[in-house]
Amino acid sequence: MSENDLSGYAGISREILNAAGAKIGDRIRIELKRETRQEVVEGLLIPRFRTRRDEYVVVKLKTGYNVGVKIDSATKISIVGKGAEPHFTRPAPPPRTAGLPKVSIISTGGTIASKVDYRTGAVKPALDAEDLYSVVPELAGVAEIKAKILFSIFSENIGPQLWPKIVEAVAEEVRAGADGVIIAHGTDTLGYTAAALSFALKGIPVPVVLVGSQRSSDRPSSDAATNLLSSAAIAGNAPFAEVVVAMHDWISDEKVVVHRGTRVRKCHTSRRDAFRSVNARPLAYYDLLHSSLQLNAEKYAQRRKGSEWSPKPQFDPNVALIRFYPGLSVGIIDWAMATGYKGIVLEGSGLGHVGESLFPALERAVDEGIVVVMCSQCIWGTVHMDVYSTGRDLQRIGVIPMGDMLSETALAKMMWAFGQEKDPEKVKEIMVTNIADEFSERRVVEAFEE
Amino acid sequence: MSENDLSGYAGISREILNAAGAKIGDRIRIELKRETRQEVVEGLLIPRFRTRRDEYVVVKLKTGYNVGVKIDSATKISIVGKGAEPHFTRPAPPPRTAGLPKVSIISTGGTIASKVDYRTGAVKPALDAEDLYSVVPELAGVAEIKAKILFSIFSENIGPQLWPKIVEAVAEEVRAGADGVIIAHGTDTLGYTAAALSFALKGIPVPVVLVGSQRSSDRPSSDAATNLLSSAAIAGNAPFAEVVVAMHDWISDEKVVVHRGTRVRKCHTSRRDAFRSVNARPLAYYDLLHSSLQLNAEKYAQRRKGSEWSPKPQFDPNVALIRFYPGLSVGIIDWAMATGYKGIVLEGSGLGHVGESLFPALERAVDEGIVVVMCSQCIWGTVHMDVYSTGRDLQRIGVIPMGDMLSETALAKMMWAFGQEKDPEKVKEIMVTNIADEFSERRVVEAFEE
Repeated sequence: MSENDLSGYAGISREILNAAGAKIGDRIRIELKRETRQEVVEGLLIPRFRTRRDEYVVVKLKTGYNVGVKIDSATKISIVGKGAEPHFTRPAPPPRTAGLPKVSIISTGGTIASKVDYRTGAVKPALDAEDLYSVVPELAGVAEIKAKILFSIFSENIGPQLWPKIVEAVAEEVRAGADGVIIAHGTDTLGYTAAALSFALKGIPVPVVLVGSQRSSDRPSSDAATNLLSSAAIAGNAPFAEVVVAMHDWISDEKVVVHRGTRVRKCHTSRRDAFRSVNARPLAYYDLLHSSLQLNAEKYAQRRKGSEWSPKPQFDPNVALIRFYPGLSVGIIDWAMATGYKGIVLEGSGLGHVGESLFPALERAVDEGIVVVMCSQCIWGTVHMDVYSTGRDLQRIGVIPMGDMLSETALAKMMWAFGQEKDPEKVKEIMVTNIADEFSERRVVEAFEE
Repeated sequence: MSENDLSGYAGISREILNAAGAKIGDRIRIELKRETRQEVVEGLLIPRFRTRRDEYVVVKLKTGYNVGVKIDSATKISIVGKGAEPHFTRPAPPPRTAGLPKVSIISTGGTIASKVDYRTGAVKPALDAEDLYSVVPELAGVAEIKAKILFSIFSENIGPQLWPKIVEAVAEEVRAGADGVIIAHGTDTLGYTAAALSFALKGIPVPVVLVGSQRSSDRPSSDAATNLLSSAAIAGNAPFAEVVVAMHDWISDEKVVVHRGTRVRKCHTSRRDAFRSVNARPLAYYDLLHSSLQLNAEKYAQRRKGSEWSPKPQFDPNVALIRFYPGLSVGIIDWAMATGYKGIVLEGSGLGHVGESLFPALERAVDEGIVVVMCSQCIWGTVHMDVYSTGRDLQRIGVIPMGDMLSETALAKMMWAFGQEKDPEKVKEIMVTNIADEFSERRVVEAFEE
């Protein structure tokens, strides 16, 4: 048995695997004797990349997760099935249908934009059009797909430094005649990017659909195909020309919810329906089974032909999002000032409060021209800084309430606003102006309170 | 008309109010002419404390909210009803029933602990026992109430500096023979305090019920009486001896949900059912109509008589909660180190990630002995730092996953852990030990992943 067949294994785990005749990629069965009971774990044997602890064997479970199982000399390992070949083969592309809408898919990375080699767990970006057709052949019946890998990174590394590149890539596709654009994106920061694009792409003539998947395509419960296929239909045909997020609905496997880019939040670490519209109804639902789009809002920007639109891709990263908590040091505000931040989004408690020990520092910040706005860490509901004296004091200091805007959205918006305007007063004006349905209009009476 | 009758009003608003013969406390009707329509606002005329803008009239709406209405010379104001007298009168206490459980109410402030003067909107702490009986006379049939004002502050000002005082006050009541303790608390940071007390009061022989209200008692929709009355029944009779939060359920006005102190979060700025159990089922429900407690969990600490329990009230505030977001400056970690923080709770994205630009600073922090743990800003679900390389890298650096623990709870727990132990290694041990049901136990297989 060659070195390669048990790559990364040493000591006791290598011994026992060798004795069983197992090699990487085999489906194995591990029987463990614990003090009070016996346990069995079954999965594909995965190579190890680090051998800190010899007593672990790593297998890919049916769920798609890899786990390391601690073994000892009493552990029995047997082979259930021999390893399969890598799955990176590419079948012939399906025949194309003429007259379908042109949809461009821009890939930035994340689970949806990758193919997994079942055998080794290796992940490979898979978004040229042929690859996509091979993963989701039904795409060929929905749109004429053009695919492009912009980058291939985890979304936790996507932020204001890369948002302009995404904006420009979308604009390029629109100029080239796309009827709609899909952005494949990791789910971690999908909500932030969606908010950022909602401002930077305001006025775009076609739909821009951000899409991710919560489960990789090698898991039976994967949402990748459903989400991608629905996104293509929405991007190609929807009557709205807005930045939206299309993700799995909780109701059924064939339904996708279309969230407004400024109103969407990842509210679960792993569920397929993790994304929720907050403080607003979803813009639409897409039913994959009946290929039907059900609109859920009266007002939206209309899709249109040819247009003099141009994007506003500039972002200034010098905006801090600071969550208030009991015991928060007042030093954080001074740090933000010293660091050169131009704006602060406070995630206050309840209706929009922070402890009064922060007041003097906030006053200094506002006096220095830093724009300070308030969202609520409650997430649902609206800040209302007229009810208690804390909120009134904060408004007197100059902290601006953001209504029911998500803090993620306020952050992206302020980074964008400072990308457009240097003058803090103009940025304040932008922050209280509804640009992309980012907050709900308040009661008709023009009101404040003291 | 004396100066006092239109206190705070000047210029045009004073003129128009004077012309109408209105005085503070009157119910007035304001008819506004807007460009396209007419609007009418009705409410109690409230004094102004600041006259930045003369063109506003402030009224208390039926909902209990105060709003400032912008008027102009075309505005018509008329009197709908004359002002009522202040409501601070105190009726005779109801007769007491013998043999009821002894319940101590410790008031820290917040909406539930106050009485509002309808006329001026003035708020007064109202928590000696007689006052409580006057506000909620039904209390006399449920428990023998002893009430104590510990402090009277907005909860956004309650934190690790005051938690020990609350702990000591509870312990004192238990030593004095209370069958249960209620803590009246503002809702803003109720969840944080509940988590903190869950650790500091671990092992207490009787129930400790934190309670707040989302709507003050002068509003028809107030939840104050329901919540207080249910809390008294729970504190006096419940079979569990844990720290819980009792707040309005969404189902009906007569139902209160009992959340575990480590699992509860304020998820709406204003709804009465704002509090939710996250990643865990509520411990119980209380039905006020039938005076029945429905337990919802199999395991809980049992109420018991006499005990050698003593609280662990020490907290160390030198723990930072840092929310990750796209563009977060790596400088925040260096700032936390320079400030002398002993621990950092990261609120990462998704399954427990942060951008890789933060890795070197986190490595420095861990090397300096700072305890760094990871929760998810998704709120629901569990961190799982074995799935993607970001999570594995972070674990290699020494960042410790907190499972499905709320970040609020992880913060309070680490402040408490550093209150008990100076050694960071011991604090790490505490953080991964389940003390007050703060995280769900994982799968039986002892597993890691690389």
